[in-house]
Amino acid sequence: MRTLFHMPLDPASRMIRIALAEKGLPAQLIEMRPWSDEDGALAAVNPAGTIPVLTDDAPTGEEVSISPAFAIIEFLEEAYSSEPLLPSTSAGRAEARRLTAWFLDKFETDVSAHTLRERIDKRLMRRGQPDYERLKAGAEALSWHLDYTSWLLEQRYWLAGERMTVADLAAAGQLSALDYIDLVPWDKFPSVKDWYARLKSRPSLRPVLRDRIDGLPPPAHYDNPDF
Amino acid sequence: MRTLFHMPLDPASRMIRIALAEKGLPAQLIEMRPWSDEDGALAAVNPAGTIPVLTDDAPTGEEVSISPAFAIIEFLEEAYSSEPLLPSTSAGRAEARRLTAWFLDKFETDVSAHTLRERIDKRLMRRGQPDYERLKAGAEALSWHLDYTSWLLEQRYWLAGERMTVADLAAAGQLSALDYIDLVPWDKFPSVKDWYARLKSRPSLRPVLRDRIDGLPPPAHYDNPDF
Repeated sequence: MRTLFHMPLDPASRMIRIALAEKGLPAQLIEMRPWSDEDGALAAVNPAGTIPVLTDDAPTGEEVSISPAFAIIEFLEEAYSSEPLLPSTSAGRAEARRLTAWFLDKFETDVSAHTLRERIDKRLMRRGQPDYERLKAGAEALSWHLDYTSWLLEQRYWLAGERMTVADLAAAGQLSALDYIDLVPWDKFPSVKDWYARLKSRPSLRPVLRDRIDGLPPPAHYDNPDF
Repeated sequence: MRTLFHMPLDPASRMIRIALAEKGLPAQLIEMRPWSDEDGALAAVNPAGTIPVLTDDAPTGEEVSISPAFAIIEFLEEAYSSEPLLPSTSAGRAEARRLTAWFLDKFETDVSAHTLRERIDKRLMRRGQPDYERLKAGAEALSWHLDYTSWLLEQRYWLAGERMTVADLAAAGQLSALDYIDLVPWDKFPSVKDWYARLKSRPSLRPVLRDRIDGLPPPAHYDNPDF
């Protein structure tokens, strides 16, 4: 049994769900709140207490728990050769991994730690109102990150080169979550919008774009590939 | 030409230096201060502006720039099969990667971001005195991390299993840097002390343990394997 411990609007969890779908690997989804692991179910599969975590017994029959997100991708690439998400050359793999870390770590710290955490996690935790200074700092950093993403996409069809890689999925995890709270100024960044429209039309994104949070609907364009 | 952009007391840079030495791969070292990249030398090899960064043209003749640290390890494992630093099984690789991320990210955030940054980086940046509240928080978290490390070493000879892996090098990068400022209470954690004594006796650690910061000598036991 393959199981993913995740949160619907967590960017790294979204990246892994899209990666599993691209590779044609079904997985049971178990929703987790890392801040309230009272029965220890998350700690049992990941002592660091973070999501996503994948458990998988398919390759050998022995269940393996894998985290964090980059290690899940390396595991999937090694265990399942279908639909590779990393290029075949050293230079290509280095670029795809660099940009995956960029979106998982730098974009997360600069943008999502401020915006998603203030708007979504605080709501789920019932811990007060968003801090508008942090939201503003996150929105400013987003603009800088979209400039860099545009610059990449002016030279390449996908973020790390001419083929779709895990770097695109890492960016899609972040931008799709931010788009849920309508924070992405798509019209100012047409090359990023074109790239995201291509991703949105892939079947792998559909389940992710169907997630809803009670009482917080996404904008009308959110799951429309033609936006 | 293989080149590592690093800082002497940066834990992730130390991990890569030890990994290169274990694999028998010489590299030119270029010291960088990520906070003062005035000529753009670091940004040219890593737009995220972080260290370590490895550049290597050996596999194909084309120079590749690789960062962050986890991507450098994956590159080295793929490009050079000598002295593997990841186990051969899925479960072993997952455990080595999980613990590598534990030391590179969680230990860094909980412990080194407080202690090393306050004691070393502020000194190098000439930006005032250490914040003693942060130092105290870091020392408390270190004690918890050493408990967890002890628990692992009571079940295994090396951190991720019966063989030395990149997880040991990630932990050695952190603990050797903290030991430079004499922050590790070795005698309270005998299984961690035994493990670190085994590592210290390896030739791969010697160049790292010879680093000195002007005006800030390490404790007498620092580079002695028999401490």
